[in-house]
Amino acid sequence: MPDLGPYSNYRITARLELKNKPGVFASVVTMVARQQANLGAVDIVEVTKAKMVRDVTFDVANEQHGEKLIAALKRLKAVRVISVSDNVFLAHLGGKLYVRSKYPITTRNRLATIYTPGVARVAKAIAEDPSKVHILTVKRNSVAVVSDGSAVLGLGNLGALAALPVMEGKAAIFKEFAGIDAWPICLATQDTDEIVETVRNIAPVFGGINLEDISAPRCFEIERRLKEELDIPVMHDDQHGTAIVVLAALKNALRIVGKEIGKIRVVVNGLGAAGMASCQILLEAGVKHLAGCDKDGVVFDTKASSLSLVKKNLRAHIRSGGSGFSLKKALAEADVFIGVSRGNILEPKDLRIMKKNRIVFAMANPDPEIDPGKAMKACRIFATGRSDLPNQINNALAFPGVFKGALAVRASAINEPMKLAAAHAIAHLIRRDQLSEEYIVPSIFDKRVVDSVAEAVAEAARRSGVARAYRKR
Amino acid sequence: MPDLGPYSNYRITARLELKNKPGVFASVVTMVARQQANLGAVDIVEVTKAKMVRDVTFDVANEQHGEKLIAALKRLKAVRVISVSDNVFLAHLGGKLYVRSKYPITTRNRLATIYTPGVARVAKAIAEDPSKVHILTVKRNSVAVVSDGSAVLGLGNLGALAALPVMEGKAAIFKEFAGIDAWPICLATQDTDEIVETVRNIAPVFGGINLEDISAPRCFEIERRLKEELDIPVMHDDQHGTAIVVLAALKNALRIVGKEIGKIRVVVNGLGAAGMASCQILLEAGVKHLAGCDKDGVVFDTKASSLSLVKKNLRAHIRSGGSGFSLKKALAEADVFIGVSRGNILEPKDLRIMKKNRIVFAMANPDPEIDPGKAMKACRIFATGRSDLPNQINNALAFPGVFKGALAVRASAINEPMKLAAAHAIAHLIRRDQLSEEYIVPSIFDKRVVDSVAEAVAEAARRSGVARAYRKR
Repeated sequence: MPDLGPYSNYRITARLELKNKPGVFASVVTMVARQQANLGAVDIVEVTKAKMVRDVTFDVANEQHGEKLIAALKRLKAVRVISVSDNVFLAHLGGKLYVRSKYPITTRNRLATIYTPGVARVAKAIAEDPSKVHILTVKRNSVAVVSDGSAVLGLGNLGALAALPVMEGKAAIFKEFAGIDAWPICLATQDTDEIVETVRNIAPVFGGINLEDISAPRCFEIERRLKEELDIPVMHDDQHGTAIVVLAALKNALRIVGKEIGKIRVVVNGLGAAGMASCQILLEAGVKHLAGCDKDGVVFDTKASSLSLVKKNLRAHIRSGGSGFSLKKALAEADVFIGVSRGNILEPKDLRIMKKNRIVFAMANPDPEIDPGKAMKACRIFATGRSDLPNQINNALAFPGVFKGALAVRASAINEPMKLAAAHAIAHLIRRDQLSEEYIVPSIFDKRVVDSVAEAVAEAARRSGVARAYRKR
Repeated sequence: MPDLGPYSNYRITARLELKNKPGVFASVVTMVARQQANLGAVDIVEVTKAKMVRDVTFDVANEQHGEKLIAALKRLKAVRVISVSDNVFLAHLGGKLYVRSKYPITTRNRLATIYTPGVARVAKAIAEDPSKVHILTVKRNSVAVVSDGSAVLGLGNLGALAALPVMEGKAAIFKEFAGIDAWPICLATQDTDEIVETVRNIAPVFGGINLEDISAPRCFEIERRLKEELDIPVMHDDQHGTAIVVLAALKNALRIVGKEIGKIRVVVNGLGAAGMASCQILLEAGVKHLAGCDKDGVVFDTKASSLSLVKKNLRAHIRSGGSGFSLKKALAEADVFIGVSRGNILEPKDLRIMKKNRIVFAMANPDPEIDPGKAMKACRIFATGRSDLPNQINNALAFPGVFKGALAVRASAINEPMKLAAAHAIAHLIRRDQLSEEYIVPSIFDKRVVDSVAEAVAEAARRSGVARAYRKR
């Protein structure tokens, strides 16, 4: 039996021609129920004495489920299936973004203002003082969403073309959430040197670079080198967007359980992009006891290493092949588990060896590291990446505001103080009296989030010396 | 004395506080006239018994002229200059383009449709069938406007940042004229190999590449290599946009004077981007006697070379150092002069050695190869690149429709038949009975131009085998 699961994201609309007599629509309803699909909107297209044409929308579990449902509808005697459409694909026709000119160009004067000959003076002004490019061009408010398609969502190495609808979607979020003009850049190369060179070469147009869906470990070197070479903010969102929200959620979880960040023991499982960046930000935020695990078990442990050295270069402390300690052993006496690894690797008994008031962020997608139903009973605070459960760790809480704040002060980089400030801002949108085990992060649709993060990030940029402008609000 | 010249593109607005008594505004008017500026709009901002605040707009010749005028206004006793603004710069604040999402993202459902998890299915569909990228993403309608800033307008090598307002303006024209989503790409490199690699690497996002303001001779190799490597249309507009409109104008000029293209003798002066491409398209269109000149005089002549070889590779026939023949000698018995070189290099007597019914296109900017006032008396048909004279050869007549037509049929290239078709379409928008010596090309604001060109280009793409789709209109 198909399981519609926690939420359906597969919605199809069928245009049906029904004989115009009693009981025919009821036969559709019965069939839909028998197929365990959900009936949604029903619209009338055309009515005659003999027939009715209706557009009927169904939520189904997946493609196969949808095909099965349509086949069943086709078997109904008084029903003809005229056409079937898939709302997700319909929404993607021709792409999801468009570019607009701020000015209509209907007159010679207008053309002479925004193009030749007027624009020549603007070009000359920028040639004389390159900093004016931040004022007189799209660079002031633009971000490139760059991917090489090597780690598209959870789907793996699908390549540049398949990454494009995802990067468009990200650009659309940048616009809708933060008013930023983001443009997708999908690269026809997965070579580290070529990626660095290509992004550096197109950087003049952009005020910031959001790297996305680039596989580890290449993502670390690509981000590091671009940060060194460019004077605009560069952030790999899979790393730092996630890490910022993890820290925000942890801060609030700790407020609830009354533990201090400097005294907790944290186990991070999965040391890809998000895991490494989470470790880094946790150390920056004051975590002193941190164990990192991958498929080989514990591969670093701050208890065994000098904290300052680990903070400086986490990666150098990772032991390939592991330390012989398993993840499950590492959980003993831990206060916090942060999973960015694989689904269903833990059982409630594994959590029960942790300290009391345990905090578990199980963020593997689509299935968390531990079954949510079981986990919620085995720990005090539970969070996932899923939108159908309380406490969704979603990087959309961070990246729009982080870039908005960085652009506002023309920051030359996104540094650690800015990320910490973003996490703090997200956490403190929830007042002490609102906080609860099931409300440790705000909704991504909470209108306060982006501007709170942006202000905090801009202020941190100023204090840390990377702000280059103070835009009037 | 400042000369406002044929048209002013320098407009400033001054906010003036005037004593509220008779004769004060008149003193401003007198001063403006004395400074040979033109008074434009006058707006009231504030009025009290003692004073009036007005925004007054002036057209001046250039920056120095504007400064002189403002200094003069400051010397007026009953007038205080509160502020001065420059309309061109005001129009450029924050850039001229913005990106929009087609959908507002205000609900979880919407987010799940255009981003995760819905977008995953779209990504997978493209991974399975890459041709779907043309249907389900911005690639269907997007063009990159790419420059390395090496030849920005007529200003020379100003670099990538200074090129950005120009490329933005071009992108705005793409949108306003042809509905194409164009995005500026200004490159932080002027190395041919790096440019080719960078453009190739970002090509997945775009349905076409418009190269712009790249200096000769690098532009030839860059375009050739990108055409070879990419399966989307690539066109260096400085070359082919200009060439298409030159051919369109020439076709109509020949209709007027009653000469056949295969029998005329043409001299092209200036063998940069536009000159070389003009030679090429003229040969494709049937010109058999063509001499090309640069600063060394005649450097190739189809009379002296095999026409088919020259058509194949014009560049190989260029003799460095020239043939000893001067431009002025080459003009003897020529029917057509096409200048894309420098201002004021010819006199009426130089034209008078040409054949009767001579056709002169003097397109050097800002000053044509020959003074327009004198030229118009010394030839039958005269055209320039200037908007303040009849017969403006403007590549905006070509590029919007060329790319629109190419995108409509998902063309894999822009080839010679498509360019010839574009020229033919532009020329034939003017009916025989409308044609005159002063009306050989339509206005760029003629609404019929873009779609006529697009249809002709799409049809030529189909016939020549480079169309890959037939989009329903």
